[in-house]
This record gives sequence, C-alpha cells and structure tokens, in this order.
Amino acid sequence: MTSVLNHNNPGGNFVGYGNEVLLYFDRKRKFLVKLEQGKKISSDRGTIVADNIVGKSIGSSFITSLNVRGWVLKPLLIDYLEKGIKRATQVIYPKDLGFMILLLGIESGSRVLEAGVGSGNTTAVLAYFVKPLGHVYGYEVRKEFIEIAKNNIARLGLDKYVTIKHGDIKEGIEERDLDAAVIDIPDPWEALNSIYVALRPSAPVAFFVPSMQQLIKLYDALNSHGGFIDIKAYEILLREIELSPTSIRPATRMIGHTGYIVFARRVLKG
Amino acid sequence: MTSVLNHNNPGGNFVGYGNEVLLYFDRKRKFLVKLEQGKKISSDRGTIVADNIVGKSIGSSFITSLNVRGWVLKPLLIDYLEKGIKRATQVIYPKDLGFMILLLGIESGSRVLEAGVGSGNTTAVLAYFVKPLGHVYGYEVRKEFIEIAKNNIARLGLDKYVTIKHGDIKEGIEERDLDAAVIDIPDPWEALNSIYVALRPSAPVAFFVPSMQQLIKLYDALNSHGGFIDIKAYEILLREIELSPTSIRPATRMIGHTGYIVFARRVLKG
Amino acid sequence: MTSVLNHNNPGGNFVGYGNEVLLYFDRKRKFLVKLEQGKKISSDRGTIVADNIVGKSIGSSFITSLNVRGWVLKPLLIDYLEKGIKRATQVIYPKDLGFMILLLGIESGSRVLEAGVGSGNTTAVLAYFVKPLGHVYGYEVRKEFIEIAKNNIARLGLDKYVTIKHGDIKEGIEERDLDAAVIDIPDPWEALNSIYVALRPSAPVAFFVPSMQQLIKLYDALNSHGGFIDIKAYEILLREIELSPTSIRPATRMIGHTGYIVFARRVLKG
Amino acid sequence: MTSVLNHNNPGGNFVGYGNEVLLYFDRKRKFLVKLEQGKKISSDRGTIVADNIVGKSIGSSFITSLNVRGWVLKPLLIDYLEKGIKRATQVIYPKDLGFMILLLGIESGSRVLEAGVGSGNTTAVLAYFVKPLGHVYGYEVRKEFIEIAKNNIARLGLDKYVTIKHGDIKEGIEERDLDAAVIDIPDPWEALNSIYVALRPSAPVAFFVPSMQQLIKLYDALNSHGGFIDIKAYEILLREIELSPTSIRPATRMIGHTGYIVFARRVLKG
Repeated sequence: MTSVLNHNNPGGNFVGYGNEVLLYFDRKRKFLVKLEQGKKISSDRGTIVADNIVGKSIGSSFITSLNVRGWVLKPLLIDYLEKGIKRATQVIYPKDLGFMILLLGIESGSRVLEAGVGSGNTTAVLAYFVKPLGHVYGYEVRKEFIEIAKNNIARLGLDKYVTIKHGDIKEGIEERDLDAAVIDIPDPWEALNSIYVALRPSAPVAFFVPSMQQLIKLYDALNSHGGFIDIKAYEILLREIELSPTSIRPATRMIGHTGYIVFARRVLKG
Repeated sequence: MTSVLNHNNPGGNFVGYGNEVLLYFDRKRKFLVKLEQGKKISSDRGTIVADNIVGKSIGSSFITSLNVRGWVLKPLLIDYLEKGIKRATQVIYPKDLGFMILLLGIESGSRVLEAGVGSGNTTAVLAYFVKPLGHVYGYEVRKEFIEIAKNNIARLGLDKYVTIKHGDIKEGIEERDLDAAVIDIPDPWEALNSIYVALRPSAPVAFFVPSMQQLIKLYDALNSHGGFIDIKAYEILLREIELSPTSIRPATRMIGHTGYIVFARRVLKG
Repeated sequence: MTSVLNHNNPGGNFVGYGNEVLLYFDRKRKFLVKLEQGKKISSDRGTIVADNIVGKSIGSSFITSLNVRGWVLKPLLIDYLEKGIKRATQVIYPKDLGFMILLLGIESGSRVLEAGVGSGNTTAVLAYFVKPLGHVYGYEVRKEFIEIAKNNIARLGLDKYVTIKHGDIKEGIEERDLDAAVIDIPDPWEALNSIYVALRPSAPVAFFVPSMQQLIKLYDALNSHGGFIDIKAYEILLREIELSPTSIRPATRMIGHTGYIVFARRVLKG
Repeated sequence: MTSVLNHNNPGGNFVGYGNEVLLYFDRKRKFLVKLEQGKKISSDRGTIVADNIVGKSIGSSFITSLNVRGWVLKPLLIDYLEKGIKRATQVIYPKDLGFMILLLGIESGSRVLEAGVGSGNTTAVLAYFVKPLGHVYGYEVRKEFIEIAKNNIARLGLDKYVTIKHGDIKEGIEERDLDAAVIDIPDPWEALNSIYVALRPSAPVAFFVPSMQQLIKLYDALNSHGGFIDIKAYEILLREIELSPTSIRPATRMIGHTGYIVFARRVLKG
C-alpha cells in the first residue's frame, strides 16, 4: 500500500521528480526535500543535484560534490515530525504521543477531539492513525497558529482527515459521540463539562499538563466531576543511548521533563 | 465506526448479551467479561448479575450485591493487553510499543514483520494499527506458544490481520517488500540478512533487547552489515503518578527496565 | 584508625570474640552477627560455627556445614543501615542521604539539627559524619520511636554523638547556631520559624517531602518567609544494574520515588 | 567549630577582610570571592564594594550599585565544587559522590586511595570527609593536571589531608592497608591487582565508568579475579525541580548520564 505520507511519491521503488525524500548522511544530518528538476541541495557535506538522484532505487546511496556518501529514503512519520513540521509552539514529544495513542486506543476510523492544536504536530499524528476513515476535530484559541497548523498537516497529506476550528472548548464543542480526546491546554479543569458532552460514554481522554500545580488542579476537578473515572497519571522519561564501536552509553544530556499525561474515561454522570 | 475490538459488542450504546465489557470499580479492580444470560460475576466488591447490566447504556454505573458501585465500559486496547491476553512469555510493555509504533510509522495498511511472537501481545498491537488493510506476519520458533498467541489475537478479533508461522527468521523469511519489522528474539544479530531481504528498501526495523551485551552485539552487527543506517537506541522509563486528594506523587515502585529499543533503516547494500 | 562502627571489633586484622562481623555469601545473603563462643548461625546456606571463624583474618573465606563458601567482613555503615537498623518507620534512603550530606556540607565537627528521628536511620548517618567532635540534635514527637532510635544508634556505637529529644520542633528548638538541619516531618512549612531561630546565619537546611502537595506548600512558605534563600529541589532515581557474565542490565524493578529533597539557606530576615 | 572551608574566614559571625564569601543573588548568579580592601566586584546585577560588606553579619543582605539585593554567605563545600574548582577534566558529580561516600563508609580518619585525580574535585570531597585525621592518596598519570588539582585542593584549605602522586596505579600503589578506594580511570580492570594489594582486607572500592563496554569488562575482571566480592553496580539520575509560585515541575533539561558506579569489597584471595 502507498502510505499517505508518500502522496508526493507515487513511483513505487524509484525516486521521481516531485517526490519528497529524506537525504540521510548521519544522525545529525538529514534533509527532507522535494526533488525538482535542476534543484541543487546545499549542505555542509557538499552539494546534491536532484537530477542525479531521480531514477535511483529508493534506499540507494549517492555521492555529494564533496565526495561524501548519503542515502535517499522514503520519509517516515517521525521524519516529518522532526524535519517537516514548522514549530511555532511547544509540541508534545513522540515518547508521550506514542503512549497516548496506545492507551487511548486510537485506530483507523476513530473520531478524535484535540484541544490546543498549536502547530498541528499532535493533530498530524492523530490523523495519521485515524486515517483513512476517521477524523480529527481540532480546536485552537490562538488564531495565528491555525494557518501554520493547516500548512503543516497539509505537508503530510493528512488535511482531509482533519478539521481545525478557531475556538475555545471551554465554551463548547460542536461534535458529539467522539471516540477519544487529547487535551493540551493550560487550564483543562475548566473544560471538563465540554469534554463530557462531546465524548461518547466510555470514551477515554488524555490530558497533557507540564506542572504539578496543574496536575493537582486537574486531578481534583476530574475526581469531583462525577463524569470521569479510571483517572491515571504518568510521566515518561526517554533516554537516548549514544552508539559507537568503543562507547555505548546513555547520552549525557536528555529531556528531563515534558509534562504529565493524565488519562480518564467519560462515564454517565449520576 | 465500530471498533474491531468491539466485534462482540455490536449494539451501539447499549450493553447486550454476548458483549465483552469492562466492569470497573477502581484502578486495582477491573474485570473483562463476556455477558451471558444468567451469568454471575463474583468479586471482592460483591456479585454482579449480568442480567442486571444488559440493557443499560454503556458507561452506566451499577451496584453489586455488597452495595458497591461499579461502571460498565467498552474495553479499550489497553484493557485487552492488561486483562485479555494470557501471558505465557515476557511481553513488550505499552510504554515501549507506543514509541515503536510511532517511530516505525506503522499505519493502517502497513505490512509488518514480527519475529518472536511469544504470547501474541505485540502481534495484537501491530494488527490493531495496521487494520483493516494491512497485515502482520509473525514468526515464532517455540511451537508451544503459537496456539496461545492465536487465541489471544482472536479474542481481540484481530486474527484476520495476522499470519503466525512456526519458524526461525534466521533461516529465512518468506515475505518480501515489508514496510516495517519488530524483532524480539535473543540473538537478532544473527538475523540481519533475513531481515534485510524481507524489508523493502528504506523500511525501518525496531529491535528489542534486554541486556547491554545484546545491545553491543546488535549495534556492532548493524554497523558493519552495510544494509542498515540511521541506527538509534533508546530506553523508556514510565513512571506512574499515584493520585489522591491529599497526596499526588510518583509511585514508590516502578518497572526500572524492560529493554533497549534499537531502530535502523534498511538501505541498498554496497 | 579504628572506625567507631568497629567499636566491637578492636582486634585489628583478626576476627575475635565479641566482634560484630558481616558474613557474606551473595547479594541476597548477608548476616550481621556478633560472634560469641559456641554460637551457631543458621542460614539456608548451612550452619556457621562462630568458633571456626574467630582467629581468622578479616576478609577470609569459610565453609558452612552445607559446604558453601562465605566470607567474614568488617561491617560498613551501609551494612548497618541494611541489616543493623530495626526499621519501625519509613526511612530516608542512602541515595537521598548521600546527596544531602554532600550538599549540606556535613563534616566532622558539625552541629546538626534533625527533625523526625523515627527509627534513627538518618540520625545514625548524620552522627557518622559529624563524629568525633560534632553532634546531632534529634527531635521526635512520637514517643514510641525514641527508644527504638536510641537502640539503633547505640548498636552503631554512635550514641555519644547524638541527643534525642521528645518534642515538636514547631513548638521550638532549644539549640542555637546549628550548622545544618535535616527536616523529615509531614508539615515542615509550619516549622520554618523554629528552624530559622535554631540555625546560624548562612546555614543550610534540607527538607524531605514525599508528595507534590507538600512540595508546593513548602516552597510557597520558604519563598514568602524572608529568612530563607537559595531554594532548590531535587529528586534522585537510583537504578541498580544486575550483573551476570551473560546479562548486565538495569534491574527490572526499582524504587520509583521516595521523596523530594528541598534545600535552602537561612539568612538574616529583613 | 570552624569548618576548614572557612580557613580564610576566622572571624565568627562577622564578615572580615580576607574572608572568602559567597555573594548570592539568585540560582544563576552566585560569586565566590575573597574580600580585600578597596576591591570592587562587578556583576550584571551591579557593582559590589567589598568595604561595604566587611563588618556585616554573615547572612546579611546588601544592595549593589544597580540597587539589586544580594546576600553574603559562608561558602559550603558545594559552592567550592560549583564555583571554586577550576575544571580541567571531567569530574564526578555530587549526585554520584554523595552516594559513593556513603556506601564506602568514608569517615573522619579514613585513609583513602584515589586513582584519576584529574582536577582534584573528587579528591577535595574525599579530603573533606576524612579530615582531620584521615588522608587521601591520589594518583594521576597526566602530569599537566597535578598542579591544577593541588591548587584547587589548596583553595579549599584541604591540602594537608591530601598527597598527590604522579603515577599509574596499574604499575603499583605505594600505600598499604587503605580503608577505601575511588577509581576513576579508563581501564580499571587493568589495575585490580594493584588495588588488591593496597586495600586492607574487607575494604570497599568504588569504580566510576561511563560506558557499557567498560562496565562489562570491569565486571568480568572483578568477577574472575578472586580477590573481590559483593560486586554491585548503580546509576543515579538527578532531577532538578524548577520552582516558581505558579509552576513547579522537573526541569526540561537534565544530565541523562554521567557513569556507572561499581562497588566491590577486597577479600583474601584463594
């Protein structure tokens, strides 16, 4: 099957003009580029001429003007998240998103609420997993980010699975019977009634809050609301391991905290 | 859309006979049960009579014989992983699986290799994300686990998206042009040629290895093979936060280590 | 120099009657015992006859009745903490104590306040580092623990460096010009005035609080008090690595949380 | 008691000329300075005139030329480690040192071996805890660091408790019957015989190794040597918590790895 991410890459196993490809040199040097006739891609590893790559098998290596070897790859979701999303806001990291997707049971066909679209990073990931029959309904109060989010999502070819609205979920959510929700706003405790109304009974919701004060307020509100049970909270620490033939070891620096992930399930109140 | 997990639960928003439901009391007391006429479910919170639950709205609460309140929920993937999978072998944990799914870019339609099926826990998760058009090809050398895995996967209604084979990937993989692979065997460095042949160029593979000796051997083999680039390794620490109105804090006990996750991409050799 | 821990072990390099020794078999089997004439020590590794060990060099091995090899060692502080302290209360773990000692700058000669003596575990560690010229002043409101603490501290031969008082530091501390303080009580924010009066200007204090609610209350109180600056908070995760010739890896289970350590320095108010 | 760290600070509770003090503004702005007549200390918080501080009580606040408030404090060990040690080499961090000190049972009076003196950071900490009757014997093969280390240690007034030698412990250690050892060299498995000879029977040793390859080699060598038992390995993760009235949360960035700490005890071989 052709992945939607490769909507610009119809040509099967060979690299063609118009394809978006990942040019890979090493862990620090990767370039997500659209190949066009005559295009030259400059890097500190030398220049790459698009015409020299087109026609090669996907997965082939090539040589730059500086005689450095690189590879031409089909981009993965993670490549778009790392290289293809313009980040105008803080985003939820893959370590947290993967766990959320799994615990929420997001699947092909799910109808999902997202609050706090920001740059559209989480929206894109949700859309990737609900396609082709599901849909993501995203709300964002800061108008200036909506265009950025839409462009980011379109770059991944996921726009037809997403509706982004300018609005505040605290004032209401238009959809009903949604299968799951991801809430990444500063004061989610104010939005519990809206979320309650929008989710189908038994549906799960994940909240993302950075601080302890927020975690406490959110838990207290969920706990006393009456419409949410099975409240759980987690934090995830991701450690990259540095790899070399003589020294394999956890990296010296790591992200120490992104936020707390809080799960709950919407039940019938009373 | 009706989720495949609710293949026994066709009746929309009301609980029906034959439905598999989650009876929830608290974080420690959850029961995944199939409701049958006349069935009585015993628990330390009292007896629940299936007939009293059937006909209720999904998400409703009920009262046990001991006058304790519970809720009837549609099970999520995580409920099946926690309560519906018979574990005959060590399994990969949700914290690791969610991250793998995201980094591998597993999606609806993917054709995925799995080596080391074991109890079928990972197989089920992969099938959940590739359905309805993708497929998981699982290999397992220990014949005694294959029936267990098949039963586990069938319980989730995911069997039509999975083929499990009795065999050792080191001796060859029958499929070609696979989109991704999850390898959970003790000596994955011996299987690199098989994996190389089975994956399409540019496809990602994730390995799961518990020990440092394995990590070193695997890295050295990947690094010198020639057909794999973009080698990355991680470990994930999941911390549950205990929640109560007077004390919110990370849990005293946690899982300190499951394994190292190693990613690579298959390229054209030479 | 003869360590105070070896107050029962005056005989230099040879094991004598009356010595407290550590009999070591493996990581799970260690016994802290006082050797007396005719004493037999039973273990699942067989019986050890004290008379057969006395006279040997410290560090020698011996053979039990079941033909298992063990070693006779001089106990270290950590052996007393693990095997020689009767734990009637929750204690602060070595991972946290070591860091506190270093950041507080506890040293031989320090005069230290401790609030929340409990079983005397922290008291013993503080006494170990302030001896022979310093002193620990410990307060405990729960009378029933004071005798236990005194016995534990005496077993390590550290009693002459410790004064334990039955009392609540919130109602006042008798000492003045103390060099440092370790506060392990449930509501330390109520004790800031007492601590302020007891510490010499510029002296550091370490608080130990398990929950986020406590951390927030403590920080807010320290921050608004006026007599404390340089407020810092930490948590420490200790991971044991399992060692075997074929598999070296972090242990599957670990302590995920003990408490937050909060440091501050007492300055002149106003 | 006057701490040795305050050897330049004999004057009790008042700030005097010649004193080394910590001028504190906030977590990021601390200055360790020796106060001399007429000295002006410049900072981005304004200028501080030494003459205006001398005569004040320790712990007092002062106002800079830019009208910013600061405090004058007696430096602690940790202030010297953070501000008073010139770092020419990688050092062992306080989180690791505190735990080592505790598990090794370093105490006033201990005679301790150190291999890999580097900048003298660990040496200073060891000296701090063994004073006034103990001694640290440090070995360093890289001649260029010895002067730096000596100067660093002298700045803390700890030089009389330390002997630093230019030499390689793999070629032998001159001391005998040492109470403990801290080994921070790249290939400690080559030095086990030297360490065995220098330590008294039953004495503990701590090794610090950054990589998994080193950890495996060291464990294998310790395990097969015959003169070391009770082999344990750990890693410590220190998380700083960011504190503010509206947001308390673990810091976004943290040190993800420094090294593995390996403990063993020297016994009689054979």
